Amino acid sequence: MTETDPTSPRPEALRVAGAQLENVVGDIQGNCHRILDAMRWAEGERADVLVLPELALTGYPLDDLALRPEFVDSALSALSELARHSGRTTTVVGTIDAVRPRRGRDSRRRAVSIAAALLSDGEVRGIYHKVLLPNYEVFDEARNFAAGRRPSALWRIGGTVAGVSICEDLWSGDGPPEAQAASGAQVLLVPNASPFHRGKAEGRRALAAAVARRNGVPVVYVNCVGGQDELVFDGGSIVVDGDGNLLFRAAQFEPARFCLDVPLARPRPLRGRPDVVHARVGALRAPEPPPASPPQAGELEQVWQALVVGTRDFTHRNGASAAVLGLSGGIDSAVTAAVAADALGPENVLGISMPSPGTPDVEVANARRLAADLGIASEIVDMAPVLTALVAGLDSVLGDSLTERTEEELHARARGAMLLAIADELGRLLLATGNKSELSVGSAVLYGDMAGGFAPIRDCPKTLLYELARHRNARGRAIPEAVLERPPTALNQEWLDLPPYEILDPIVERYVEEGGGPEGIIAAGFDRATVRGVLQLIDDAEFERRQAPPGVKITARAFGKDRRMPIANSWRPFAAEEEELVASPDGTGAAIPTPPRA
Amino acid sequence: MTETDPTSPRPEALRVAGAQLENVVGDIQGNCHRILDAMRWAEGERADVLVLPELALTGYPLDDLALRPEFVDSALSALSELARHSGRTTTVVGTIDAVRPRRGRDSRRRAVSIAAALLSDGEVRGIYHKVLLPNYEVFDEARNFAAGRRPSALWRIGGTVAGVSICEDLWSGDGPPEAQAASGAQVLLVPNASPFHRGKAEGRRALAAAVARRNGVPVVYVNCVGGQDELVFDGGSIVVDGDGNLLFRAAQFEPARFCLDVPLARPRPLRGRPDVVHARVGALRAPEPPPASPPQAGELEQVWQALVVGTRDFTHRNGASAAVLGLSGGIDSAVTAAVAADALGPENVLGISMPSPGTPDVEVANARRLAADLGIASEIVDMAPVLTALVAGLDSVLGDSLTERTEEELHARARGAMLLAIADELGRLLLATGNKSELSVGSAVLYGDMAGGFAPIRDCPKTLLYELARHRNARGRAIPEAVLERPPTALNQEWLDLPPYEILDPIVERYVEEGGGPEGIIAAGFDRATVRGVLQLIDDAEFERRQAPPGVKITARAFGKDRRMPIANSWRPFAAEEEELVASPDGTGAAIPTPPRA
Repeated sequence: MTETDPTSPRPEALRVAGAQLENVVGDIQGNCHRILDAMRWAEGERADVLVLPELALTGYPLDDLALRPEFVDSALSALSELARHSGRTTTVVGTIDAVRPRRGRDSRRRAVSIAAALLSDGEVRGIYHKVLLPNYEVFDEARNFAAGRRPSALWRIGGTVAGVSICEDLWSGDGPPEAQAASGAQVLLVPNASPFHRGKAEGRRALAAAVARRNGVPVVYVNCVGGQDELVFDGGSIVVDGDGNLLFRAAQFEPARFCLDVPLARPRPLRGRPDVVHARVGALRAPEPPPASPPQAGELEQVWQALVVGTRDFTHRNGASAAVLGLSGGIDSAVTAAVAADALGPENVLGISMPSPGTPDVEVANARRLAADLGIASEIVDMAPVLTALVAGLDSVLGDSLTERTEEELHARARGAMLLAIADELGRLLLATGNKSELSVGSAVLYGDMAGGFAPIRDCPKTLLYELARHRNARGRAIPEAVLERPPTALNQEWLDLPPYEILDPIVERYVEEGGGPEGIIAAGFDRATVRGVLQLIDDAEFERRQAPPGVKITARAFGKDRRMPIANSWRPFAAEEEELVASPDGTGAAIPTPPRA
Repeated sequence: MTETDPTSPRPEALRVAGAQLENVVGDIQGNCHRILDAMRWAEGERADVLVLPELALTGYPLDDLALRPEFVDSALSALSELARHSGRTTTVVGTIDAVRPRRGRDSRRRAVSIAAALLSDGEVRGIYHKVLLPNYEVFDEARNFAAGRRPSALWRIGGTVAGVSICEDLWSGDGPPEAQAASGAQVLLVPNASPFHRGKAEGRRALAAAVARRNGVPVVYVNCVGGQDELVFDGGSIVVDGDGNLLFRAAQFEPARFCLDVPLARPRPLRGRPDVVHARVGALRAPEPPPASPPQAGELEQVWQALVVGTRDFTHRNGASAAVLGLSGGIDSAVTAAVAADALGPENVLGISMPSPGTPDVEVANARRLAADLGIASEIVDMAPVLTALVAGLDSVLGDSLTERTEEELHARARGAMLLAIADELGRLLLATGNKSELSVGSAVLYGDMAGGFAPIRDCPKTLLYELARHRNARGRAIPEAVLERPPTALNQEWLDLPPYEILDPIVERYVEEGGGPEGIIAAGFDRATVRGVLQLIDDAEFERRQAPPGVKITARAFGKDRRMPIANSWRPFAAEEEELVASPDGTGAAIPTPPRA
């Protein structure tokens, strides 16, 4: 160490504070307040460094809001304001920064970067620009942001040489953390905006440990929390030492603050000169042991919390505090109602039971029972007169008999229209109740059970809904046994020749989430004709999915931002095996069998 | 010239064929047939080179279809098949290619490139990988594709040294065309997939001329045609000489073939060695004069054709041949009906007039007159019984009086549900009739006038619809004068405090299409309070736009893929001027006034 920097004593630990803030897109003023509060707290904790999440000042993701100059200007002003309030604790603030316009890998210039600003002693003392911009799955960062060009930037914070990386920077195995450690960083400070999916928390822990071990430096990984459209940021911030051992893990799904002594890597020979944030070297002292981490929830509980937080924040951030939904007596609306009750409070949820003449009494009874168990208000609307009038109204065009499918979809859409009227009159958000199995194969009725502003369970397959319901019931009566015991009805509809959910859901998982091809799915033990039919339905339902409301992403690849497919799409994964390529004499493409049903 | 390559005679011209093919996403088999037909034709024309559009073999854009290995394999097989059929004419085929997995600017490896394969004499003799991958506006190419690494690649085709660039490669001013010309290219062959918007055709001509002049080489720019979801590819392929003079411009909006002698740039000193496609040097001969170009349509006619082609192809490619739509007697449904009649034939369009008790008789009369003038079938459905039943059904929850807005939206949604039933029973596509002005400010009723599989005029502001109607009428009776003379009703609704369309539409254009900020719009002469109100409505309506059906993009920045905004978004462009940044004592963000109405 003395070879590298003989003038400064060697601190053995850095006192690091982390603030796992709520992520609120566009709310620069509110974010500014939340950051200032955290800065005051960290000064009180005598922290050397406070690390905040990625884009803490602006919210994440910004999408094309980043293209609006007045927004960028506002973020820059707010950062100056924050800097004025900074003191002895160096604060690493995630924000956006204006940079010299530069081309990426296309002809367009970009003039904004994702940044981590280092504030200290009343000033912005340094700024790091994110180097790796994720552009896959739900991420679009290369669309609007200029990539940083200083992956090996180092920052001298008192006696410590630190590296700052941002989220994706960490994931390549050969990126800024590696460059910074090789250049002399003793600790990596990493702001993140990392959305939840099943298994993500464990993946993050493994990643942070691997980066720490590979580079021999501790890693402070701070994530944000809260629902933003289809994404839920689940926090679970992580601190690992230079051997990859977990020092602390913050709670998931809620704002949190933590402060601990992080044992630093031994000083290393420096390549390049660190930018000086400040030169005050603290007293030499041994690190205190870290505080105890809160318990980690199991995976089903994580999913449940994601649904609750995503639903709560979408509702509140769009100006509502209460919700309405249709109660069919089935599992979909039951789980949606339970999520809504947990998210908004049972007193803010209104369930409407809307029986048709053909609706079994037990379904209305189950809906009433559900409402009672959840403690939510419920009403019954008799649909019979409406349906009679609708069918009669169509008589002049269609005659007096509709196919069963059209009639059922008409009923669902009449319910949707009435639910929206109720929601609008009461100033509430309508929650749609469609699930992922239905959305996959096109059996969710667009403008019917998919009517609404938010669809909490749209990424939950039917089989998972039963698991979630039982999980939630273990915590207190929520979803009546009678609902759980009743067999699902949708796939009995004769117009869809579908396998049971126990077979459908794993096929969807393999095709959609894992990106597997038909042959691989068949090889895993599924019937060829079944796979063929299901894949065809999945491909054809893109049309309906495009108009579905957003809902909470809980899987590694949800429909929506995560999986972008053309609507008009002649590709059929099975076509190649049956038709010779240059065979058809008329030069036309593959036939598409049925027009899209909305 | 003799300094550079003394062994070969100097051809003065290259005989270039272009095939402006239909762009059909995923239809590898059909595309293969179309390409083979063009190859046979070009051989018959004794062309030296045949240039096809970008991704001619796979269709454009592919979105996440490019991630499916079975799709990539199928494209590779098809290319081999095409190569087997190639002869003396070198064919430049746009397709995808498997490449060694490589990282872009994030942690993800990509293993597919956008390519132009050079086929000759039964083989794939060369392959160029697109270097610049557009990742802005509607384009997402960096998401799934690996960038090419040989911007200065050259190809010897007989006695000619050619450069091949693909679409975006052309637009940077310092990209592959510049590298290729500097390395010795005498001609640039450029496959494209360039979607239409107003003014685009002229922009492309200016671009091709600028590239040619800057580099002193002729440019052969071949575009595809046809509608793909919200995009319409309008063809209009261009050939310019080395001084930028237009030699030929192909028709817009329809498949076309052309063949002409392109005068080559004088041979230049070569940097690097061109890949040899073939070494047969043709006889020295002077170029023949180019064929006459078809006449160029004016801008309104281009917009009309885009609407027609987009509607036609979306309908056909999703398996329908006929359409249904609601006819209100107003301009929106009138223009939509006229577009549908031109797109599908009047015999394949059914208009349904659905009067409420409050509907003026003149509107039903206008709808009937429109149907007669267009030659489409029409029916009348009396909505009174349905509406009575709906309002009565809501009585138990809401009491017997609804606000005027909720009641009107309920009517619109009941119409939407019935129209969908008609469309589904008849196996037709339902066309939604909402326009851009309404979609901007949230006055288009989701699941009501926005119900349907496709919304042809969703990117057309109201003021443009009148221009389009008069333009279409000049070609033959289509939209009755009575419809054009009736004042628009939507913005009279008292719950929306909006300016007339003559003021609203330019504000939307400045804010949405041009990305202008509030102060700039006010400075252009608009009332501050009006601008403030309109911008707020535009921002709040993101929620509704997200669920709107796709429609034809005709402006430089449409809603949809073009403009990606968060739904939950606290940003208010006017907030900064009225509220001090770190002022509010409670730390909460800006209030959001109203819950979203679907």
